[in-house]
Amino acid sequence: MKFSTIAEAIGITSASSLTVNPDHDPEIWGVAAVDQATDGSLSYVEGEKFARLIQTTAASALILPADPTLQQQASDRGMAWLSTADPRLGFARAIALFYTPYRPQPGIHPTAVLDPSVRYGAEVSIGAHVVIGAGVTLGNGVCLHPNVVIYPGVQVGDRTILHANCVIHERTQIGADCAIHSGAVIGAEGFGFVPTATGWEKMEQSGVVVIEDGVRIGSNSTVDRPAVGTTRLGRGTKLDNLVHVAHGCQVGEGVVMAAQVGMAGGVVIGNRVILAGQVGIANQATIGDGAIATAKAGIHSDVAPGEIVTGIPALPHKVFLKASAIYRRLPDMYKTLQRLQK
Amino acid sequence: MKFSTIAEAIGITSASSLTVNPDHDPEIWGVAAVDQATDGSLSYVEGEKFARLIQTTAASALILPADPTLQQQASDRGMAWLSTADPRLGFARAIALFYTPYRPQPGIHPTAVLDPSVRYGAEVSIGAHVVIGAGVTLGNGVCLHPNVVIYPGVQVGDRTILHANCVIHERTQIGADCAIHSGAVIGAEGFGFVPTATGWEKMEQSGVVVIEDGVRIGSNSTVDRPAVGTTRLGRGTKLDNLVHVAHGCQVGEGVVMAAQVGMAGGVVIGNRVILAGQVGIANQATIGDGAIATAKAGIHSDVAPGEIVTGIPALPHKVFLKASAIYRRLPDMYKTLQRLQK
Amino acid sequence: MKFSTIAEAIGITSASSLTVNPDHDPEIWGVAAVDQATDGSLSYVEGEKFARLIQTTAASALILPADPTLQQQASDRGMAWLSTADPRLGFARAIALFYTPYRPQPGIHPTAVLDPSVRYGAEVSIGAHVVIGAGVTLGNGVCLHPNVVIYPGVQVGDRTILHANCVIHERTQIGADCAIHSGAVIGAEGFGFVPTATGWEKMEQSGVVVIEDGVRIGSNSTVDRPAVGTTRLGRGTKLDNLVHVAHGCQVGEGVVMAAQVGMAGGVVIGNRVILAGQVGIANQATIGDGAIATAKAGIHSDVAPGEIVTGIPALPHKVFLKASAIYRRLPDMYKTLQRLQK
Repeated sequence: MKFSTIAEAIGITSASSLTVNPDHDPEIWGVAAVDQATDGSLSYVEGEKFARLIQTTAASALILPADPTLQQQASDRGMAWLSTADPRLGFARAIALFYTPYRPQPGIHPTAVLDPSVRYGAEVSIGAHVVIGAGVTLGNGVCLHPNVVIYPGVQVGDRTILHANCVIHERTQIGADCAIHSGAVIGAEGFGFVPTATGWEKMEQSGVVVIEDGVRIGSNSTVDRPAVGTTRLGRGTKLDNLVHVAHGCQVGEGVVMAAQVGMAGGVVIGNRVILAGQVGIANQATIGDGAIATAKAGIHSDVAPGEIVTGIPALPHKVFLKASAIYRRLPDMYKTLQRLQK
Repeated sequence: MKFSTIAEAIGITSASSLTVNPDHDPEIWGVAAVDQATDGSLSYVEGEKFARLIQTTAASALILPADPTLQQQASDRGMAWLSTADPRLGFARAIALFYTPYRPQPGIHPTAVLDPSVRYGAEVSIGAHVVIGAGVTLGNGVCLHPNVVIYPGVQVGDRTILHANCVIHERTQIGADCAIHSGAVIGAEGFGFVPTATGWEKMEQSGVVVIEDGVRIGSNSTVDRPAVGTTRLGRGTKLDNLVHVAHGCQVGEGVVMAAQVGMAGGVVIGNRVILAGQVGIANQATIGDGAIATAKAGIHSDVAPGEIVTGIPALPHKVFLKASAIYRRLPDMYKTLQRLQK
Repeated sequence: MKFSTIAEAIGITSASSLTVNPDHDPEIWGVAAVDQATDGSLSYVEGEKFARLIQTTAASALILPADPTLQQQASDRGMAWLSTADPRLGFARAIALFYTPYRPQPGIHPTAVLDPSVRYGAEVSIGAHVVIGAGVTLGNGVCLHPNVVIYPGVQVGDRTILHANCVIHERTQIGADCAIHSGAVIGAEGFGFVPTATGWEKMEQSGVVVIEDGVRIGSNSTVDRPAVGTTRLGRGTKLDNLVHVAHGCQVGEGVVMAAQVGMAGGVVIGNRVILAGQVGIANQATIGDGAIATAKAGIHSDVAPGEIVTGIPALPHKVFLKASAIYRRLPDMYKTLQRLQK
């Protein structure tokens, strides 16, 4: 594929992009990381660390930020390039030109076990050894990979993909264009027990999990249903692997949770919140729209919209940075203080 | 169902409960959270935050704490109510009146693969594509959901439920009335490797996992077997999702572990211990009866019975609270100290 | 089995071992922990805590460190013993003499679903309800336990074992002598999304996971494939349960990761690194050969070879120990400082 064709296809408009002169329009055979690229590859560069690799990469073409110095460097090395405010987005679109994700053919494998009451749309793909309970509805183009188990009363929207060995529990509602990755468990009963004199008494979990359109749930993540009402993941929210969403959490739209994040019961997450890896959020806390929690933050109380928090317990990010920078000097401070006291 | 019938059924005795006058005994159609309740719903109220909702809820009846002010508020709004020392427990019992958990019919699905030596009791339910190895024994009323895999030599007690896609490894002993949730892996070989000059040499894990009666293990949790002896979870212990119990841990009775808790090898946990979310416990540590570790605590040494610990490394909770309150002032303290030194 | 036979079989050479006089060579029936041993058992002792148990154990024979005092104690109690610099290694080898791990017979179960293009070597064992996609290659002696799902284009090396319900995604390359434990998900698409004005746009993950020879991956762990290039686990690396390795991580040889470790994208781990439980490593960080991160460390930047780091954010271990020892005195320091200011 000609580089100019790629540039056009990825939608980098004239306002935001520049291409080297039309004489230099190499044939591109694939995409690669800038430090692993070979002749015929397209790569991208973002950040100082990777910008240095322009001098050594074997790529034939680069997607660059809007930086004349980097453009000149690429030109000097005889590489084609285009510039854009978001090179990573350009690269994402370039990958999609060269890569066709694996997708099973439509059809129902003869070893799948469907309750007679299951209803499904056109062009569904149901893999080997899938098991689907009573009253389940699958939309058009739904794809269930092998060994998926769906308990009774579940709804799955159009074009949603469930990867191998994931389990969808009773009454869960999944929207359109979702991806549930392998081993994820959605809608299992929440962890509800009440202490009594004779031990922990179970609170039945009669509620339901609702997953809105365009949600992505990572491998081996778990989303539990509540005692009453719903656990909800809003439209376009993306969860990485091994994330735990407890009973009754209300997660907004466009939220991102990195791997191993965990939320206790009844947490409320606003829209476009970002939770980095291994963040934990305590019971009933509310996180405002656009807030960010950095990796491993332990959040015990509400976080205001747009706030960035860090640490255990979580503090405003700047406060934490200053305090943690002093932390290693504690022994010296202690000695100084003792000396002063004398 | 009449409100008075519910009140009676949930066992709130006259000593601990009060009902409004018998003229006010509405028909209740279901249960709901107090902020989502509609006409005909029963809700409960616990804690200040939710008590305020008595003024606005659309519920027809409430379970209240023993607080005359709240009772008056509910009466003023024309709601039926009862009071109890533990409204949450009352609500748990009310849910059970309205909700019948999904339960497959007894029977063995024709696609299940059972070794001829498998023995099972009355009224077992074995789902589609279940696989059961040699010498396995299942008690009466055991329920195996689809795609469960049981390795050889496992025993499962009466009425225990194994949810979809969970895996029980060789020789594991599971008691009666347990629930193992989807994707959990019980009895896999512990992480035993010994460093040698040529790399990590495996220590075979010849031991066994023992799960006593009434234990609950959450989705995608893992409980490993040890090199020799047992890994044990005591009677009535409850584990949330994505919990890791390493080889050789000895967990007492009535213990609660929230999601993503992890224990290293040989940890000993007393009875009625509570471990909040994402707690980690190092090799061989002993946690005394009734101790509590708050969320994200990192425990490196023994914890006394009844102690509450917090932080990384874990400190007595009150010590941690005071210290962490000062933490954010570290930069100021540092500057003050420098000034004083001059 | 005679104790002398065991001593010889476990390869404790004359240089490093001593046996009690040949008259005392008991018959050994099994292995056990020193505090659970019974007559006829072989146990081992390592560290002060367990050394005390020499006085009370019912074991018939012990593997001891090279410590004359302990040897004398064992002799005094009439136990056979041998001494070695590494008793735990000796015990590991002793276990292997008494324990034969469960291993299914070779053969392909009739319920397994193999694409006609699948190729496999001699003596493979393919369990019930296994599903294998197009173009998959399995080496000699490969063992797939029930309900394993393998997506198209995967290669699995000789003698590798995949436990029940694990999922291997498209194009993953797994070496020889690996063990992938139950529920692990290898090669699923990495968590790649690019923010745009209208939400998170997916970056297709066209890369591949490469697992070299002798790697062990624990139950319910996840190893994701990257957008381009590889995610790699080097030869002899061992992962415990519930570990997350993100897209594009490069993990060296002989690395050990304890349970619930999580790595963000593009992390580089050197050889023989040890990551204790619940460690987290941020995007693109590089960990040098032989470095150690203690439990729960949060690593945000590069770690030098051989360094030991602790804490969140991670500090050199000794620095952290000193600082954390002062942490609990912060309230006192604060008061002192206020008094001094006056």
